[in-house]
Amino acid sequence: MKASELAKILGGTLEGEDVELVACGGLEEARPGDLSFCKDPKHVALVQETKASAVLLPPDWTRGAPCSVIRVEDPNRACMAAAKMFAPLDPVRAPGVHASAVVDPSAKIGEGVHIGAFTVVEKGAVIGDGAVIEAQVFIGEGCRVGAKTHIYPQVTLREGTIVGRECIIHCGVRLGGDGYGFNNGRRDDGSIFIEKIPQLGIVEIGDGVEIGSNTTIDRARIGRTYIGPMTKIDNLVQIGHNVKVKGYSGLIAQSGVAGSTEIGYGCLIWAQAGVSGHIKIADGVQIGPQAGVSQSLDGSVKYVLGAPAESMRDFGARTLLPRTVAKIKAEVKEIKAKLG
Amino acid sequence: MKASELAKILGGTLEGEDVELVACGGLEEARPGDLSFCKDPKHVALVQETKASAVLLPPDWTRGAPCSVIRVEDPNRACMAAAKMFAPLDPVRAPGVHASAVVDPSAKIGEGVHIGAFTVVEKGAVIGDGAVIEAQVFIGEGCRVGAKTHIYPQVTLREGTIVGRECIIHCGVRLGGDGYGFNNGRRDDGSIFIEKIPQLGIVEIGDGVEIGSNTTIDRARIGRTYIGPMTKIDNLVQIGHNVKVKGYSGLIAQSGVAGSTEIGYGCLIWAQAGVSGHIKIADGVQIGPQAGVSQSLDGSVKYVLGAPAESMRDFGARTLLPRTVAKIKAEVKEIKAKLG
Amino acid sequence: MKASELAKILGGTLEGEDVELVACGGLEEARPGDLSFCKDPKHVALVQETKASAVLLPPDWTRGAPCSVIRVEDPNRACMAAAKMFAPLDPVRAPGVHASAVVDPSAKIGEGVHIGAFTVVEKGAVIGDGAVIEAQVFIGEGCRVGAKTHIYPQVTLREGTIVGRECIIHCGVRLGGDGYGFNNGRRDDGSIFIEKIPQLGIVEIGDGVEIGSNTTIDRARIGRTYIGPMTKIDNLVQIGHNVKVKGYSGLIAQSGVAGSTEIGYGCLIWAQAGVSGHIKIADGVQIGPQAGVSQSLDGSVKYVLGAPAESMRDFGARTLLPRTVAKIKAEVKEIKAKLG
Repeated sequence: MKASELAKILGGTLEGEDVELVACGGLEEARPGDLSFCKDPKHVALVQETKASAVLLPPDWTRGAPCSVIRVEDPNRACMAAAKMFAPLDPVRAPGVHASAVVDPSAKIGEGVHIGAFTVVEKGAVIGDGAVIEAQVFIGEGCRVGAKTHIYPQVTLREGTIVGRECIIHCGVRLGGDGYGFNNGRRDDGSIFIEKIPQLGIVEIGDGVEIGSNTTIDRARIGRTYIGPMTKIDNLVQIGHNVKVKGYSGLIAQSGVAGSTEIGYGCLIWAQAGVSGHIKIADGVQIGPQAGVSQSLDGSVKYVLGAPAESMRDFGARTLLPRTVAKIKAEVKEIKAKLG
Repeated sequence: MKASELAKILGGTLEGEDVELVACGGLEEARPGDLSFCKDPKHVALVQETKASAVLLPPDWTRGAPCSVIRVEDPNRACMAAAKMFAPLDPVRAPGVHASAVVDPSAKIGEGVHIGAFTVVEKGAVIGDGAVIEAQVFIGEGCRVGAKTHIYPQVTLREGTIVGRECIIHCGVRLGGDGYGFNNGRRDDGSIFIEKIPQLGIVEIGDGVEIGSNTTIDRARIGRTYIGPMTKIDNLVQIGHNVKVKGYSGLIAQSGVAGSTEIGYGCLIWAQAGVSGHIKIADGVQIGPQAGVSQSLDGSVKYVLGAPAESMRDFGARTLLPRTVAKIKAEVKEIKAKLG
Repeated sequence: MKASELAKILGGTLEGEDVELVACGGLEEARPGDLSFCKDPKHVALVQETKASAVLLPPDWTRGAPCSVIRVEDPNRACMAAAKMFAPLDPVRAPGVHASAVVDPSAKIGEGVHIGAFTVVEKGAVIGDGAVIEAQVFIGEGCRVGAKTHIYPQVTLREGTIVGRECIIHCGVRLGGDGYGFNNGRRDDGSIFIEKIPQLGIVEIGDGVEIGSNTTIDRARIGRTYIGPMTKIDNLVQIGHNVKVKGYSGLIAQSGVAGSTEIGYGCLIWAQAGVSGHIKIADGVQIGPQAGVSQSLDGSVKYVLGAPAESMRDFGARTLLPRTVAKIKAEVKEIKAKLG
């Protein structure tokens, strides 16, 4: 898009060459062909060094720029508007079932549903109105997918999985796999046995849940593994069998929650943190990155860090321990010198 | 299913309303429509607060319940029996190759094998009798899959992979991807090179192994990456090239084992733990959650924790270090006061 | 292959029985049917205990072997040559589009491109000359894949993703999923809202990049998530939105980089390490296994370890802290005894 054209759309004025623009980017990462933006005079050095072809600047900017300038009232907002224009178009997923999809005749497909190429929908499955099931998805027997839910390519829902309304399930998500459960021991003759415990329950996902790429959520041993409404789960997260996430919580990338644990409302579990099985995390608790929580948290501490997890204050003191110890060591040395 | 009908099947007697029941659940997470259970009078408060529509109770329970009651001799066992009735039916995977599957004519498909929709089986692959290969699976050239092994949807086996008998491979598992191996350095002219080391080996999985969703196991550089019999691997686990897991071991979710390491018989690697490359873990050793093991473990310590991994005792002492240091600090202060 | 035949190819001489050989393996893991190798007399015990059927030994080896021997000048090199012969043949991916693939007529497919069974290529996508897109892959609208890039089965590229030349993308990789971004707070009436922030950018992968199985890389909020040339990413790695990896870096299995962080040239992020968002890691810095980096690293320390990450020296001192504290404790006790 020509800079002049963009300036017109954004209600701004172009100064300098009428360059061709193809993308947006921050001042530092922008390249030729990019549009960047700056509002705050304190970033003048970044503007001077940017490789962008054009930059959105406010009317009162007097420091110049090494490229074309589009003057607008609010550069941040204008950049978001421009970003929408440069963004890949949202692919149209028109209602209809792709000719190649294998949909069991007993499945109930709602109004306006899109089902993509090579997708399998097994018997008794129910897909709600306006849902989008993209290509190469597997929807097992008796699954229920709520209205307006969007399932991206290459997701699998094992039999019996329930997904609510207006959910977003990203590529490679696995819902309803068997939980990890084995009985083992020794037989009378001394030989070892390892026996699979049947995983008879399901996964149930509430309304408005988003689940990131390649995340895995296991079916319950009995009953349900439950992800409550509006919970937002990032990529590569593991959720064990019979976990209950009450709702309105966040689980960031590569975190994990072991079996039968309950996560309260409004919790936030940061990246790579781990929560042991059979415990309860109170509403509103945050578990910091890489933390390891092995005991229930009653909410008296709102943010825990470290492994074993402790308060920010205790974690901070632990971090400073080498310094504290060095100081004591010096004092002891001094005392010993005094004492001869 | 009506509560009265269920009571009859379970050999119990219904007290209260003949409610409709659709699932099983623990006392705390049960909802209307659920059947729950309790054996132990100490959980009386949980029974009183349950939202279940019916609860299985023993003959001698006298504390009542806020819902219908089914009296049975052994509530736990009765609940497991009921759970099986409520569980999603195991989908029937009848022998036969789905019309859409692409199976190379040179592949050898055993008796009674099921091959699902959109599955690819490449040339020279051998599928054992009674194996189930579900939809959208990729079986590369020359792979061998043992009898009665069950491969869930969207698994990939790169060329040459060998899977034993009666294995269970969950959705999204990747067997036989290239190991991570590069030579790098500087050329005579100072420029950097990074060169891929060919990964010429395979992955071999023993009998009775179960592998959880989205787990990845890399092919050997030469020879085999080997997962011994009856090993149970959870979701999102990473196993590097040339790793050897002797057998009868467990690897819990999000743990990782780096290249060329050997894991003995009967080991247990807990969630999010990491084991470095080129070391040996003796038979029966357990590696605790999030532990980091960078040196061989000879089995003299049976359970390690922390990073670097140490014994439970040492880890416990380390955890208490801030308290220990605070105490010493106070003592030193006291001494200094005494000395003036 | 007969040992005699192999000996001839390798330019060596066979001593002992003309056994049938099927694979290569190290001395310890080799089994009957395997060829192993040894150069160094110090490994004589391993040779004596190997279960290999034949072993490559140098001319001056006088300690014998419990199996057939092939004498060669350089056993290591000979074994690599043999490994190539035993390796699964590289499957031929001949130019052409599989009859079952769904390729939009507007997609531009280069010369000599292979597109496998059940692969979807959406409108406007561009596939460079000589690229191999294996079976069951999803290439979204407007994606661009560079010449000679190899994409293994069951990879997904969301719309707009750009992949460079001569890249290798392993099974289950997810490029271009939405980044994790939500606005939340309370409405005037006290109710909670959680609002998705549109993810308008793309993922761009430079030339010569390799990405391991089931790794996920999120699209930018605006602009690009960028993985620079020759970067080598292992399995199950998570890269957040707007991350910039300049190039020639390595990211080992299960590591993660949070949003908007910049990784310099020639960095190495070891397994299970985590890097926080919105920071910068200088060129050439290494981040050790399981380390947690939450602040920018300027390169003054070349290798960091622990969480919070610190220098090897500081990490070592921290590791030894229990010992240091025990020593001080004893000294304080002694002083107190002296003082009465």
